[in-house]
Amino acid sequence: MMRADPQGGIEAIVLFCHGARRASWREPFDALRAELAQAAPSLDVRLAFLELMEPGLPSVIDQLAAAGRRRLSIVPVFLAPGSHTREDLPRLVGEARERWPELQIETRDSLTENAAMRAAIIRWILQP
Amino acid sequence: MMRADPQGGIEAIVLFCHGARRASWREPFDALRAELAQAAPSLDVRLAFLELMEPGLPSVIDQLAAAGRRRLSIVPVFLAPGSHTREDLPRLVGEARERWPELQIETRDSLTENAAMRAAIIRWILQP
Repeated sequence: MMRADPQGGIEAIVLFCHGARRASWREPFDALRAELAQAAPSLDVRLAFLELMEPGLPSVIDQLAAAGRRRLSIVPVFLAPGSHTREDLPRLVGEARERWPELQIETRDSLTENAAMRAAIIRWILQP
Repeated sequence: MMRADPQGGIEAIVLFCHGARRASWREPFDALRAELAQAAPSLDVRLAFLELMEPGLPSVIDQLAAAGRRRLSIVPVFLAPGSHTREDLPRLVGEARERWPELQIETRDSLTENAAMRAAIIRWILQP
């Protein structure tokens, strides 16, 4: 059902999450990371947080670059486009590109910008 | 594919969202609300926000109660369980139950607590 390398050359996916004070907040993201890694074993799948939790996005990108990854996809696991995805994320990616000019970094939209994701949410609401 | 009245008697669904400074942040939630209303035409589907956007959850519950709705389902459109879903939401629902003792209010889990939702997110990541 799933393609392990859908984007032709992507070596690592970073799930970029907001972070929260409550430690348990991250548990479903840990599950998501593990399930994605299982679904796409050829990809190096990492979690990174904007704030309140570690590791932060800069250090994850640095680790991936140091490990020789060159083509990264950053998936903002945010519900909707706001300042975190439209300002913070481009700024952090811009800074990473200055540190690592050889990296190819793509960034993805937030979840509910995608019609198929909205349909999945509606199915979950109506068929709990 | 979808059942219009899956919970046997629910009359209204409130999509409870965080809110943001950026006005455009709510656009995908407006789309989600409209698409859910279309998928379940028998349900009164409303958006409500925790902060930064209107209407707030208390006023939406009051409007639904005043309109004669008695069985409400509140869906926190939050990615993961944090203080907003574990503290703010129960507090707001508790206060609403004091104002409207005749209401039956159920609350749902956050999105990524659900394995099927995580699988949908993984599909979206791997098959953009």
